[in-house]
Amino acid sequence: MLKLPRGTRDFSPDDMNKRNYVENSMRATFEKYGYKEVETPVIEYLELFTKKSGETIIDEIYTFKDKGGRELSLRPELTAPVIRFYIDKLQMKPKPLKLFYFGKCYRYDRPQKGRYREFKQAGCEIIGTNKPEALAELISMSYNILRNIGVKDIILNIGNLKILSYFFDELKLSKDQRKYIMPLIDKSKIEDLKGAFNKFGLNEIKVEKFLNILKTDDICNVLNFINDKNEIIDEINNLKEIFKFLNSSFKIKFNLKLGIVRGLDYYTGLVFEIEAPSLGAEKQICGGGQYDLINIFGGKETPTSGFAIGFDRTIISLEMEKYNFPEEKLDFYIIPVNDNMIEKSLEIIELIRNKNVKVDIDLLRRGVGKSLKYSSSINALNSIIIGPKELNNNSVTIRNMETGNQKIIKLDQLIKSI
Amino acid sequence: MLKLPRGTRDFSPDDMNKRNYVENSMRATFEKYGYKEVETPVIEYLELFTKKSGETIIDEIYTFKDKGGRELSLRPELTAPVIRFYIDKLQMKPKPLKLFYFGKCYRYDRPQKGRYREFKQAGCEIIGTNKPEALAELISMSYNILRNIGVKDIILNIGNLKILSYFFDELKLSKDQRKYIMPLIDKSKIEDLKGAFNKFGLNEIKVEKFLNILKTDDICNVLNFINDKNEIIDEINNLKEIFKFLNSSFKIKFNLKLGIVRGLDYYTGLVFEIEAPSLGAEKQICGGGQYDLINIFGGKETPTSGFAIGFDRTIISLEMEKYNFPEEKLDFYIIPVNDNMIEKSLEIIELIRNKNVKVDIDLLRRGVGKSLKYSSSINALNSIIIGPKELNNNSVTIRNMETGNQKIIKLDQLIKSI
Repeated sequence: MLKLPRGTRDFSPDDMNKRNYVENSMRATFEKYGYKEVETPVIEYLELFTKKSGETIIDEIYTFKDKGGRELSLRPELTAPVIRFYIDKLQMKPKPLKLFYFGKCYRYDRPQKGRYREFKQAGCEIIGTNKPEALAELISMSYNILRNIGVKDIILNIGNLKILSYFFDELKLSKDQRKYIMPLIDKSKIEDLKGAFNKFGLNEIKVEKFLNILKTDDICNVLNFINDKNEIIDEINNLKEIFKFLNSSFKIKFNLKLGIVRGLDYYTGLVFEIEAPSLGAEKQICGGGQYDLINIFGGKETPTSGFAIGFDRTIISLEMEKYNFPEEKLDFYIIPVNDNMIEKSLEIIELIRNKNVKVDIDLLRRGVGKSLKYSSSINALNSIIIGPKELNNNSVTIRNMETGNQKIIKLDQLIKSI
Repeated sequence: MLKLPRGTRDFSPDDMNKRNYVENSMRATFEKYGYKEVETPVIEYLELFTKKSGETIIDEIYTFKDKGGRELSLRPELTAPVIRFYIDKLQMKPKPLKLFYFGKCYRYDRPQKGRYREFKQAGCEIIGTNKPEALAELISMSYNILRNIGVKDIILNIGNLKILSYFFDELKLSKDQRKYIMPLIDKSKIEDLKGAFNKFGLNEIKVEKFLNILKTDDICNVLNFINDKNEIIDEINNLKEIFKFLNSSFKIKFNLKLGIVRGLDYYTGLVFEIEAPSLGAEKQICGGGQYDLINIFGGKETPTSGFAIGFDRTIISLEMEKYNFPEEKLDFYIIPVNDNMIEKSLEIIELIRNKNVKVDIDLLRRGVGKSLKYSSSINALNSIIIGPKELNNNSVTIRNMETGNQKIIKLDQLIKSI
């Protein structure tokens, strides 16, 4: 039998019902914040992604040569394509530019729950401002997108890579050392982290201080750890102002977490993540922050921030929380009682469809009993039975499929009532 | 500069506005007919498409090996994947099964207007019935999808490959001869067709008769051309009944065109096409019919029909017809007159957004004059100017961006009015 490729999925009507609900809800929230939708191709030249993430990314993505010998790839994420698009065609637009998008992405990963080779992302970028109110709005939007969909249990953590780097600098960590400890910080592996610092020959007081910084949950305390305030004070004040807006204007709950680690070459300051604990091990559902990609891609320097939301994980988290997705119902199912009724039934179905409701009709000439069974199998709210006796009197029989009640009704009265 | 791959496109907010309008309209029509949405992966094993279309298709599609050495491809169309999905997981569902879908497809083609390497298709399949009313409904839906979107100038042509094949049989044409003349019939190259028949050694009377069949526009006349009526009479009567339903019940305009040629290995009877003359040379916007793929893929035999609509061509045809796409407007743009107003302004924006309208805010602290300019550049309907004097009085200034009229209004009155 023909199979679908490993790590990819088919989506049934029930799945699509959920997916369309989530996409429409996300789109509505993005638009409420003045964001505008864009779309880029699924295939891109490989160099777009190696320029952003280095050559090592090649092992993790689908790449292939086109017939002209150029290296193509299936996009592993959407920010690089959108920034390419921005530099190519949108640089002259008035700033700030607020863009959002949905798209399938591809990673050559080992598939597991919440990790697929073909997955969908939602995301956005705000280009042209790094004011605290812009960043606070961005963060609160990410939170509200998930809340508006109906995800209940989410945790928002906010960090800052400039501040983290400042402390790395104080510890005089080399680039390789930073690379080594970052995953340990990310996964909160404190014992392993202590071991690494020990190996690096750092004195224990410094290590203890650094571990305390990671634990700090109050931005005002961070200043106490800082020796050379000039270097980092602006960044801390910015973060304070962002927190003020989130607290007092947007009334969003969040945690300071200076141990948030995202790609250091790419993110430049603020970073944030949203976790959905219902997801278990793969609980991160959203990630973003301030980054610099326009520069790397050769565009005119301007501040950028954005985030991505895992579309599939959002759906899994709703399912885990037993969210009550809106059900798709068919308004009417039409049953001609015999073959002579078909022509007139098709005419009636047209009249009803013109009222913008969902209508189906028996297309197998299978009789009233079997048709009623099918009608309830496809979740029809009402069946309309069209027989010669009633039709002679310009009437049809309508049956409420939930209660089983049925009555004879004049056709024009029925049409008018819809 | 980083480029996008040849034959692929980026879509701007204006493009997406059009594309979302078209997709939503198409989805609404499919659902009105009781069709349910499904989705399949962009990547499929290559054998899915070679099984359907033969090895020659490899030259026309993107193929690549995964890291395990299996041949993958970017899907060139959506019917084969949906039928694979049906056989794998939907065979036990009550019949008929009405499925629709949207998806990006890929062909390694020479790009030109209306032909892209990455393009989008909409389509549907009805599985489990070949009754004339089912086929008539399918055809009328394809027509109404385009009319409901707003495409005005479309031409619906209906043919039948069983009937065409009957006449091929009468002429005793070999498989190769059929293959040779089919593109000539498709493009109505009558002189070339005559030349080919001459080369095949057919007598002129027979050729003249065949050409007259191609010209017939009345299904009742077709019978006059037929010697052995038993073989083909059912098919003709079916087609007559389809035409009756289209005429009298659905009131759809169409033409009989026995010269419609689609893949003979795949389509089995009814075929139809819709042309949008506004598109010029590449004017076919929809194509479909009855086909047999379930058999080829090893599923349990059941009749299937469907069609595909070119999504990109639909948009081009609307643009050619100067269709007035609904415009996206921002409801409110908020302007804090100075930095001290930001915190309160963000609070106000939350109140307004909770009313489910689209609101943006100055995120560059650029003052009232420049902000009003930006507000009109992003098509805001109203600007709300938040200053200390008015705010002390629980009021704000609202400016109608079209008329330029502005007035001071109590904040709670404003919120209530939204």
